[in-house]
Amino acid sequence: MAGDAKKAVVLLSGGLDSATALAIARREGFEPYALSFHYGQRHAVELECAVEQARSLAREHRIVEIDLRAFGGSALTAEIEVPKHDDVGELTDEIPVTYVPARNTIFLSYALAWAEVLGANDIFIGVNALDYSGYPDCRPEFIEAFERVANLATVAGVKGSTLSIHAPLIHMSKAEIIRCGLDLGVDYAKTTSCYDPAPDGRACGRCDSCLLRRKGFRDAGAEDPRRYMEV
Amino acid sequence: MAGDAKKAVVLLSGGLDSATALAIARREGFEPYALSFHYGQRHAVELECAVEQARSLAREHRIVEIDLRAFGGSALTAEIEVPKHDDVGELTDEIPVTYVPARNTIFLSYALAWAEVLGANDIFIGVNALDYSGYPDCRPEFIEAFERVANLATVAGVKGSTLSIHAPLIHMSKAEIIRCGLDLGVDYAKTTSCYDPAPDGRACGRCDSCLLRRKGFRDAGAEDPRRYMEV
Repeated sequence: MAGDAKKAVVLLSGGLDSATALAIARREGFEPYALSFHYGQRHAVELECAVEQARSLAREHRIVEIDLRAFGGSALTAEIEVPKHDDVGELTDEIPVTYVPARNTIFLSYALAWAEVLGANDIFIGVNALDYSGYPDCRPEFIEAFERVANLATVAGVKGSTLSIHAPLIHMSKAEIIRCGLDLGVDYAKTTSCYDPAPDGRACGRCDSCLLRRKGFRDAGAEDPRRYMEV
Repeated sequence: MAGDAKKAVVLLSGGLDSATALAIARREGFEPYALSFHYGQRHAVELECAVEQARSLAREHRIVEIDLRAFGGSALTAEIEVPKHDDVGELTDEIPVTYVPARNTIFLSYALAWAEVLGANDIFIGVNALDYSGYPDCRPEFIEAFERVANLATVAGVKGSTLSIHAPLIHMSKAEIIRCGLDLGVDYAKTTSCYDPAPDGRACGRCDSCLLRRKGFRDAGAEDPRRYMEV
């Protein structure tokens, strides 16, 4: 990795989107510092994927333990059933029960702390409009507002540096993201999107996230290398 | 406590300022849900004070474990010596080594998560201009920017509720805060401000925070009930 590359903190969940965002950060010449969270999610198999992605593309990788279960309120962390569907057409515009309160705000805050310690002026997050599917903290106006907080919160901002929050996927469809990632050599076998995987790591194929992923691969005309339980 | 009181999440460190902010939230008719953090701070005696303050004024109190040491970079969490002075006149406008990167951004993010789960539209934080003393995340423009994030990040915001970040001390001097708190019956013996207390909990009397506190009590014409090591 080039010694003069600019450092960037990249939020890395181990999902399809953040793996693509990591590859984009590398392509843009940044030296990525990958940041993942163990936050009591059901789908901790994500973190194994994050480790694999970081190993090939990041300069460093930190996994921070945070306990969002303390507050409850989401099917991803609490004992609420993850909804299953047979088709992506069944997804609604309602905010889903898998929404985790303030999750991206918390994740970006930690990224900001690490960026400040590293002297990095760039943070990458793999949110996108499709993945939004009702999550308020995946919207462009949220990212812009957080960027303003980042510049006011930090010593770097006070001293005149500009901190940028990059959300390179925000206006891309799932199929566009997948095509972009395949061009950049992302190994999607080592990503998972499932909210409710089997103990052996296979994806359920029927949660909102699996349905969007599978449709994305179909639309991209590519084969999804991820193992599913029953599809 | 009145059953129809509005819920508010109150960030409570156990210091003088946040104890006063908690009392103000109560006076304004809110039902306080106090939130503290164990973040690897040297001065964990603060948390004992937070427990005491919450016991008398809050409906609930949660202490969340977070590990800011993972990123290093502050005398409050790392092995950097806390600076000592003989007089408040020695304090400079420089950002001090006791600054913890992105601390208030992280704390407010957690407060936001809990507010969302509780259905609370109000968050109190005891930042103030004097306590600012070079900390960028204690400025009014930071609080305003975070309020915007809070309203864009949450389901409540999407559905039309307005989330307010209250910083009632932000334009008060330390002496004004102390007079206000004494009027409201705050027991300042059960607050601590020291960055580097003795193992038995006594304050050092000479760190930036102790100096500002002692000057505040002098200016308010009140006696500081806190025990000091050597003053």
